[in-house]
Amino acid sequence: MIGRLNHIAIAVPDLAAASAKYRDLLGAKVGAPQALPGHGVTAVFVDTGNTKVELLEPLGELSPIAAFLIKNPSGGMHHICFEVADLAEAAAKLVEGGARILGDGTPRIGAHGLPVLFLHPKDFDGTLIELEQLQSP
Amino acid sequence: MIGRLNHIAIAVPDLAAASAKYRDLLGAKVGAPQALPGHGVTAVFVDTGNTKVELLEPLGELSPIAAFLIKNPSGGMHHICFEVADLAEAAAKLVEGGARILGDGTPRIGAHGLPVLFLHPKDFDGTLIELEQLQSP
Repeated sequence: MIGRLNHIAIAVPDLAAASAKYRDLLGAKVGAPQALPGHGVTAVFVDTGNTKVELLEPLGELSPIAAFLIKNPSGGMHHICFEVADLAEAAAKLVEGGARILGDGTPRIGAHGLPVLFLHPKDFDGTLIELEQLQSP
Repeated sequence: MIGRLNHIAIAVPDLAAASAKYRDLLGAKVGAPQALPGHGVTAVFVDTGNTKVELLEPLGELSPIAAFLIKNPSGGMHHICFEVADLAEAAAKLVEGGARILGDGTPRIGAHGLPVLFLHPKDFDGTLIELEQLQSP
């Protein structure tokens, strides 16, 4: 079911500082900040060639990563995202197998404009897993 | 400097259960457990096509992930690993830029038989970063 690792998301307290570290210290290919108010984050994409690191800073009062940064003030790995060919089918199989989908269980549109859902971290070894519908060819 | 994301490592309390979830629930390509006594872990590699997820369970009394699992009993994302073409050069540039290398600063042989080093998570937004020497062609 799961395909490529689309990205690993890292919540950071200071996006400009984190971007500079990835660009200047690690010599990575770092994009420009993208404000995603509908998702409550500003994101910087680090292109590793085979996948992406997404550096995320809270945006607005209801950011989904605000609580994480209160608990982890230095930042930390927040979630990993796998691509799936058919998100509805994947969701049905996961629920049938006893996994919990966060929220109301319905996919929403993610940061890349594609349907996504999140699985309960308690069902996957403390790891928040995002599943993203594979882009149509 | 950094190249491909070689893997993301997830520390898990029960490797057999975690492997079964990735294989049966997520439908992933999951390898057989590999005991790596020199690294204090048993590892299962999940092949996502473009990169790997490494599920790690402590092995032996001095496992480097034992303390992490005491703090995070359900498990969690432990580190990410990037490939670099020249580890010694990368290390020199990082130290020059103010980043701290864990241990004595000398690369050691990692789980894939290649030289690796780890960067201090406090220098990279709470994220433990491993750098692995790219395999010679």
